Amino acid sequence: MAKPKDTYYLTAHCPGNLGTVDVITSYLREQRCYVVEMQTFDDVVSGHFFIRVEFRPPSDTVFDEAQFQQSLQPRAALFAMQWELATAAQRPNVVIMVSRLDHCLNDLLYRYRTGQLAIEIPAIISNHPDLQRLADWHHIPFYHLPVNDDNRAEQEAQVLNVIQECEADLVVLARYMQMLSPQLSTALTGKAINIHHSLLPGFKGEQPYHQAYDKGVKLVGATAHYINNDLDDGPIITQGVEVVDHSHYPEQLTAKGRDIECITLARAVHYHIERRVFLHNGKTVVFTS
Amino acid sequence: MAKPKDTYYLTAHCPGNLGTVDVITSYLREQRCYVVEMQTFDDVVSGHFFIRVEFRPPSDTVFDEAQFQQSLQPRAALFAMQWELATAAQRPNVVIMVSRLDHCLNDLLYRYRTGQLAIEIPAIISNHPDLQRLADWHHIPFYHLPVNDDNRAEQEAQVLNVIQECEADLVVLARYMQMLSPQLSTALTGKAINIHHSLLPGFKGEQPYHQAYDKGVKLVGATAHYINNDLDDGPIITQGVEVVDHSHYPEQLTAKGRDIECITLARAVHYHIERRVFLHNGKTVVFTS
Amino acid sequence: MAKPKDTYYLTAHCPGNLGTVDVITSYLREQRCYVVEMQTFDDVVSGHFFIRVEFRPPSDTVFDEAQFQQSLQPRAALFAMQWELATAAQRPNVVIMVSRLDHCLNDLLYRYRTGQLAIEIPAIISNHPDLQRLADWHHIPFYHLPVNDDNRAEQEAQVLNVIQECEADLVVLARYMQMLSPQLSTALTGKAINIHHSLLPGFKGEQPYHQAYDKGVKLVGATAHYINNDLDDGPIITQGVEVVDHSHYPEQLTAKGRDIECITLARAVHYHIERRVFLHNGKTVVFTS
Amino acid sequence: MAKPKDTYYLTAHCPGNLGTVDVITSYLREQRCYVVEMQTFDDVVSGHFFIRVEFRPPSDTVFDEAQFQQSLQPRAALFAMQWELATAAQRPNVVIMVSRLDHCLNDLLYRYRTGQLAIEIPAIISNHPDLQRLADWHHIPFYHLPVNDDNRAEQEAQVLNVIQECEADLVVLARYMQMLSPQLSTALTGKAINIHHSLLPGFKGEQPYHQAYDKGVKLVGATAHYINNDLDDGPIITQGVEVVDHSHYPEQLTAKGRDIECITLARAVHYHIERRVFLHNGKTVVFTS
Repeated sequence: MAKPKDTYYLTAHCPGNLGTVDVITSYLREQRCYVVEMQTFDDVVSGHFFIRVEFRPPSDTVFDEAQFQQSLQPRAALFAMQWELATAAQRPNVVIMVSRLDHCLNDLLYRYRTGQLAIEIPAIISNHPDLQRLADWHHIPFYHLPVNDDNRAEQEAQVLNVIQECEADLVVLARYMQMLSPQLSTALTGKAINIHHSLLPGFKGEQPYHQAYDKGVKLVGATAHYINNDLDDGPIITQGVEVVDHSHYPEQLTAKGRDIECITLARAVHYHIERRVFLHNGKTVVFTS
Repeated sequence: MAKPKDTYYLTAHCPGNLGTVDVITSYLREQRCYVVEMQTFDDVVSGHFFIRVEFRPPSDTVFDEAQFQQSLQPRAALFAMQWELATAAQRPNVVIMVSRLDHCLNDLLYRYRTGQLAIEIPAIISNHPDLQRLADWHHIPFYHLPVNDDNRAEQEAQVLNVIQECEADLVVLARYMQMLSPQLSTALTGKAINIHHSLLPGFKGEQPYHQAYDKGVKLVGATAHYINNDLDDGPIITQGVEVVDHSHYPEQLTAKGRDIECITLARAVHYHIERRVFLHNGKTVVFTS
Repeated sequence: MAKPKDTYYLTAHCPGNLGTVDVITSYLREQRCYVVEMQTFDDVVSGHFFIRVEFRPPSDTVFDEAQFQQSLQPRAALFAMQWELATAAQRPNVVIMVSRLDHCLNDLLYRYRTGQLAIEIPAIISNHPDLQRLADWHHIPFYHLPVNDDNRAEQEAQVLNVIQECEADLVVLARYMQMLSPQLSTALTGKAINIHHSLLPGFKGEQPYHQAYDKGVKLVGATAHYINNDLDDGPIITQGVEVVDHSHYPEQLTAKGRDIECITLARAVHYHIERRVFLHNGKTVVFTS
Repeated sequence: MAKPKDTYYLTAHCPGNLGTVDVITSYLREQRCYVVEMQTFDDVVSGHFFIRVEFRPPSDTVFDEAQFQQSLQPRAALFAMQWELATAAQRPNVVIMVSRLDHCLNDLLYRYRTGQLAIEIPAIISNHPDLQRLADWHHIPFYHLPVNDDNRAEQEAQVLNVIQECEADLVVLARYMQMLSPQLSTALTGKAINIHHSLLPGFKGEQPYHQAYDKGVKLVGATAHYINNDLDDGPIITQGVEVVDHSHYPEQLTAKGRDIECITLARAVHYHIERRVFLHNGKTVVFTS
């Protein structure tokens, strides 16, 4: 659900220290910003501190974002704090990549067109032409960029070009079914979310539902994670799960898993665009709502 | 799991206002207290603000609680703030009331004796003698206080007497199966947690599993709530749920519900003693962990 | 997921008795029908027996359905058995009724167009024009039949007319938001499924998410049930649930509930069309898969 | 919950074939046995058939088990059927093995002493003395059999001796924390259930909660499985799961996982003793209730 447009997200992290909370909250108080929601995490293992504040600036003046950031910087610097300011008024650009399977795309498009996900979708990229009609119905440009072993570098250059042209804030691999090259993965670090249809780290790689069937597990699930250079091994954002039994062949697992894939991926995108996710040491801190 | 003994819980609530967060965090900073965990909730409907901070005082001096509280008070008063300071070093006294069914009691005692619930249990009160042996094994005084329609006022006076003698911080009705009088309910407002074996507000009153069976529901559950003067209608703290089907007669529902009753009640007690629950307008704000 | 076309569903129920299973299984054996899946329930409370068999007829001859039924009848009659034969080859006609909210409709249409729900949808009926475009995109006739207090009888006659013209096997109220008259409810007994956005019997009637918010529950859910003459009180088929907390206002509960409404309703339709649901004494027996 | 004593379990499996159901049901009919519950599974992948029937023999005569079995055998043989008859009147002997952690043992003992698990516990075996007192309180013989790298063969011989002396039907490794030798594993094939505190096949081996923490998963779980020669790789019976987040260090994961370990293990034991589990090709068929 879209936040009011005067909502701001201030996120920050730094080494844990006395005063890390206060440096943020006292500044917001001085600036007469109203704290709507606030969460902190002090990681005793890594000694790192994380904070997310949702606030509304004073309504009696125009909020000067540049000024706000400029004045915050020297204070934050005292704590070696990395921080970011974002606003709900600016919907992030999300590029979606798909292959032939449409359930995750269909689900994201539904949440997009009904305003449940406060995003813009400037492009859908696919290595197959099948989902053009679905994109058309939503008036979203569809880029058919076929890929094979011979043209992979070229195709990825085209993909990256579309992403850059769109000024994408986030790339969502909604069952794209292709491994990205290390180059592309690296270029998209922290900016690309993949949905894998297993409870990672179980059943990495191809056909996880077949692997799950062969193993005879009694639960299957889905994992939304940031991509990195290791296949299906990036930082996990959120996971979902379903009970199954011996009567679920791979085909039934595939059918049963669809809903949980859709919901898990949409939740991860929602967390990301509301600035609820921090990447740290190959893992995530997620301030859920 | 028990918190380190130098953990303090500062909880506060007041009308929502600019500066409600800062008044707490800046004070903690001044006092050189380290914020371990912090949550806030700004209720846009009631316009009320809630905050919970877990902190550790400076380790290089003795923490003067009285001084800390005295200096906080005038600042908090500016916001009409109600607040409380508690410490993990002081385990709360929890009096447990039961009838004949022992699953919730057995579960609470296990968590108590293994240190998972950081409480003292100075007394177990029952209107039946059956669970004496279980209390004995844990070296906990057992008060057998039979009750019937004729002696109810008298028995409740005895109950209240035990509670007061023990300086109980919390009373847990672990399937006590007796309605408390309005007098006793009122005396225990906000200090007594009941477990009801249904998803309230569905199936209030007697034999909820029989009611659930008659209705043919496909989910049953348990609700932990503070007691008030209305039967099974007090502020809900937490709820749990289980899938069932047509083959579950009342006896099977009863069996299936036991685990979820135990877990739900233990979770509520855990939230309460870690000062995670606020009572407000007949509902609760619960900062879960 | 669609079953193979040579799949047959034989469902039966009768007073519990020695031989109720055998009368079915021995007949299937004689007819050289291969049992694929089989479930029974012997209700010790009502003394009633239920059986569902999924089978494939012999592949070396043409299966004579009429003959099969004719020969079964005298044997079934010995047990006062009510029974039905259905085939996966014949997709049931499902008429969907909606108002303005489209999430359940959108979900059902997705499952329909991808073959996950093996149904035909000959008509969508709505009292508002809003969802015409969604119907058009799926090439499904859309009947805009506005209703108000003055024209209710007339409108319901038109609704019933569409249902009859379509030879609907099932009517799905996918958030139709209008109470049906006793006449229409009665006409659709056992043939109309409604989705109600609460864990019935809690929060019947209007705005259940607002009711849930006011009560401060920590779980919300959805209930798919057959309609009857009592508002939101028909036999329950299946229910779904979500964890919520104090920060979920009615708007957030509404948003959070959407997914579980969709999934719960789709599951109920799936059970119905695969002949997994028996209506009995105001409750259901559901042989889940 | 204990079944009535005149309950019989008939389980069978064989290559899938026309008549596999009928051979059982027609025999039960002839013997005037009343079918209470019945489930079948026809595995299209392996071509194998499984059936479980719960029945009550005629109440007007003494049921001659030997005669029943003798007459069934030639018919079952026609289908190369492996079958077993068991009765609820005979509580299975379950030997429990533990190390120092007591949560699973405590839970099993509670279910045992309250009759929820219809078993006898003739022995508790431990490589540590710690849980003697808990065993004593339940009047169960406790065997303290320390083990180290030098005496492993000897200790396992003692373990096996206790198991055999007790005529154990089942061995439950309730967090035993020791790898069994291939010899002992083999001796206990299909007769020993282990609880592993991860969602297998993820996080095999030591300290799975630490592994889960390091990976940053958002779900943890427990897996009950039959042991075999491969560590934590035996056929899975049932699994349970819990949502976690970044704030759960290994210590918190351990605490949070306890409940789900207990429930998952108890459920597996329940399924096993009610003859609901078939071992087949390194996986299980489980007819849940």
